[in-house]
Amino acid sequence: MAQERVSHSSLIGSSPAEVRAAIRQGTYDGHTAGLAAGYLQCNLAILPERYALDFLRFCQRNPKPCPVVGVGDTGDPQMRTLGQDIDIRTDVPKYRVFRDGALSEEVTDISDVWADDLVTVALGCSFTFENALMRNGIPVRHIESGRNVPMFRSNIELVPAGPFSGKMVVTMRPIPEKQVWQTRTICARYPQAHGAPIASGDPAEIGITDLSEPDWGDAVEINAGEMPLYWACGVTPQNVLLDAGLPLCITHSPGHMLIADVAEDAETPILEQT
Amino acid sequence: MAQERVSHSSLIGSSPAEVRAAIRQGTYDGHTAGLAAGYLQCNLAILPERYALDFLRFCQRNPKPCPVVGVGDTGDPQMRTLGQDIDIRTDVPKYRVFRDGALSEEVTDISDVWADDLVTVALGCSFTFENALMRNGIPVRHIESGRNVPMFRSNIELVPAGPFSGKMVVTMRPIPEKQVWQTRTICARYPQAHGAPIASGDPAEIGITDLSEPDWGDAVEINAGEMPLYWACGVTPQNVLLDAGLPLCITHSPGHMLIADVAEDAETPILEQT
Repeated sequence: MAQERVSHSSLIGSSPAEVRAAIRQGTYDGHTAGLAAGYLQCNLAILPERYALDFLRFCQRNPKPCPVVGVGDTGDPQMRTLGQDIDIRTDVPKYRVFRDGALSEEVTDISDVWADDLVTVALGCSFTFENALMRNGIPVRHIESGRNVPMFRSNIELVPAGPFSGKMVVTMRPIPEKQVWQTRTICARYPQAHGAPIASGDPAEIGITDLSEPDWGDAVEINAGEMPLYWACGVTPQNVLLDAGLPLCITHSPGHMLIADVAEDAETPILEQT
Repeated sequence: MAQERVSHSSLIGSSPAEVRAAIRQGTYDGHTAGLAAGYLQCNLAILPERYALDFLRFCQRNPKPCPVVGVGDTGDPQMRTLGQDIDIRTDVPKYRVFRDGALSEEVTDISDVWADDLVTVALGCSFTFENALMRNGIPVRHIESGRNVPMFRSNIELVPAGPFSGKMVVTMRPIPEKQVWQTRTICARYPQAHGAPIASGDPAEIGITDLSEPDWGDAVEINAGEMPLYWACGVTPQNVLLDAGLPLCITHSPGHMLIADVAEDAETPILEQT
């Protein structure tokens, strides 16, 4: 018997555990922006153990696009340091399964894909610093205008590790010039969520030809008196995983994140660590 | 022909590369406290690749005692993200080689121990925040009195990963009560170097029976108006590695650290990352 669906707005104000319960029960499979305010949300990369050491090395060497906030035991679907009873097979609203570097299927449950050799890596996401900017009165254009953040391939080389290499994907947010310094200061407080911007101003300097033509997401206006700032983006590790052509890897679907029980401004992403 | 030895004081003011060159040439094998001021110094853990994934998971789950700042490729003695031409076999003043969980030898060069399956993990160290405290006029008792920092086994359980588990080792520094808050604030800026203290006040609360009897290092006075603060300690991962009884692992000798080319207050420990 199909369960009654719940809406995004009906989940506003729910705890991380409540949102994950709705997702696990199959009553919610939408995006997670604005849900469980104040808690860490995570990008997801699930891959076979034989690639996990190189992938963790890759993330360590590229901490701004790839801030690791949790790593599961091999074959264990629980993410024990990120929350109570997080089952990574069922508690993310939507997943993308890639085989041999190509999208195979988009699903709401990966229980039948899960295997004993899989390792889950959770990575911080931009929701964390966007929330902090808005709390501090700094406008976030794509959210104001109900669009997805514009993302661009840059010419910034990543530090390679094993089969993983490539160029950084960046997001762009136009910020009023008088708030640029404050924006940098706020974002630098969140190394687990891409940290401070990696560039500002002329897009050509990082290999972007046209800000009105993002490679992913939606273009946004840049008004007079605003400066485009560029942040390292969590799509970077996804692209790198795809380019590596792994026989199997699983990510979240864009915007459909893992919600942790850890506060987004915790000193570490480890639950109840003293 | 033996090279002329250089003294610690003669290296004050030298760059990280200059200090490493003296170490590599065999003309310096002393401690590194106070050398290459302003640059990151690192704890060292070298272990066979088959344990490296679990060890990195262990470090990720225990970020305060085990802040990873660099990971080498398997079999590659260069630490490319931490500096120019860092050869981990020769550029640390003194090493301890452990076999089957017991100290085997203490040496100044591990070229003949190095093997194609070894992975080097560099971890942040307390010198970073001690320097920051002293720059801010906060006294660091063991440095003032020319002693080693007092270290204690605590009852704080670490989050396990594979063969790695145990309890946290902590350092204690007495801080004037009026500077405790500032101390916390300063240290929290250095997540790559153990971050904010993990406890304060009564040592019994974290399982320490007698502050005058440290498990390692030297006891220091706690004066009237001072509060003992406790920090996660880099001896933690060393103990955990030993307890795991690996066939081979190599660490630095206490106080004899790897000096990186990265600034100790860099946003990330990755050299020249944009």
